[in-house]
Amino acid sequence: MNRFFVTPQDIIDNIIRLCTEDAKHIRSLRLRPEETFSVCDGTGIDYICKLGERDSCTVAEIVDEQLSIGEPTVKCSAYMAYSKGDRLDFAVQKSVELGVYEIILFESERCVAVPKDIPKKVSRLQRIALETAKLCNRGIVPKVTSGGNLNNIIDKVSVESSQASNLVLFFYECENRLSIRDILEQRLLPPFNNEGSETKAVSIITGPEGGFEPHEAELARSKKITTVSLGTRILRSETAPVIALAAVMYHTENL
Amino acid sequence: MNRFFVTPQDIIDNIIRLCTEDAKHIRSLRLRPEETFSVCDGTGIDYICKLGERDSCTVAEIVDEQLSIGEPTVKCSAYMAYSKGDRLDFAVQKSVELGVYEIILFESERCVAVPKDIPKKVSRLQRIALETAKLCNRGIVPKVTSGGNLNNIIDKVSVESSQASNLVLFFYECENRLSIRDILEQRLLPPFNNEGSETKAVSIITGPEGGFEPHEAELARSKKITTVSLGTRILRSETAPVIALAAVMYHTENL
Repeated sequence: MNRFFVTPQDIIDNIIRLCTEDAKHIRSLRLRPEETFSVCDGTGIDYICKLGERDSCTVAEIVDEQLSIGEPTVKCSAYMAYSKGDRLDFAVQKSVELGVYEIILFESERCVAVPKDIPKKVSRLQRIALETAKLCNRGIVPKVTSGGNLNNIIDKVSVESSQASNLVLFFYECENRLSIRDILEQRLLPPFNNEGSETKAVSIITGPEGGFEPHEAELARSKKITTVSLGTRILRSETAPVIALAAVMYHTENL
Repeated sequence: MNRFFVTPQDIIDNIIRLCTEDAKHIRSLRLRPEETFSVCDGTGIDYICKLGERDSCTVAEIVDEQLSIGEPTVKCSAYMAYSKGDRLDFAVQKSVELGVYEIILFESERCVAVPKDIPKKVSRLQRIALETAKLCNRGIVPKVTSGGNLNNIIDKVSVESSQASNLVLFFYECENRLSIRDILEQRLLPPFNNEGSETKAVSIITGPEGGFEPHEAELARSKKITTVSLGTRILRSETAPVIALAAVMYHTENL
């Protein structure tokens, strides 16, 4: 079923106002009068709709509603270092498919490709996140933002990591003691539903093509952030966040 | 460390003969006399080498050897349906990074992009597998082959699935009872080292863009192959095999 996202303010009584772009999309889909589509307002409910007015594609009438089934029970934030070419396009698309909650981009020492126009890059990736969320059944559109440099990120997440409900993982290729499986088994305990579980949020930090500098990993450790390995094979910079997310989703019964 | 693959026949005494292409690559890397590189013969040993003759890059001298650390303890075969564009390029690259043992391509009913020249496609993907294996620390180069159509594949794996040591998983988007986690917990029991474990091999079958037809899933079930879900979000055809592999590797302590 085709899927569109609106804000809660776009819904008044039984009627949803669609933005010009979605209206254009609906027109290009040539939806017939009785065909339905789903509209999501990002609060966990899917509205089953049909077009409201014959000649307009900007208004939809709600005919049914159901709980979104595409949202995982764990909130995963993916902190990704800027990478070359279309690597982040890939990482964002796959992360959204896997159920990421938000994506925060940052600059670290070995980044070779920090975009000159960061807002433009963020907006391009946000667009990829939106298109992917529509296609893969998500109940929200994960936000893509820029988080400055690694120091800013570590300061931010180190506060979160001090709370029992937050698990922060810093993926470092020279870490060889602690695997992602070890740490998830120690710290991410069932039940994994949002209400009962102890850990409600997981943050994943992954580096650029060349990985992290030893002093960057040291900085993370000094702020009580756990450095973790993703195994003996070397994963590319765009693969690491996706596999880390897959592990968290598998572990928490969200796959 | 740079990495090259040879066959066991290329090693005589302490000397390894490199193919023209690798010799060209070594020349382009401008390796200096004392620099070492690693050569793998696909049997689980990494040879640490240096160039043998000053003016030639075709002969390497073994100075040390060690066990390959990049091979997982479980043999995973990924059966992937033909997909559009560069989707298979992506799926092959990521699968090799994750430790796949072999990749078998096949045609199924909803395939919209079966290549006209299959040997050319296979050879292109084999090249991607080789380049990825070099970069990500693999001890073997996973073979890419063409396996005909889904019927051929099901006939082949249904024999394997009758053995306790083989687990065959058919990923079907309309399956909503059995998750990959359920089946791995039931069937893939520790220890996961190749000697002691009951299940030594896992085969993963994933469909093309439109997924499988109901009768295709029925055929698999009729041959005692388990149909499995990858969760409530819809994964793209190139994402599904990669996430299924990640789940198997995570579950078997290979991540």
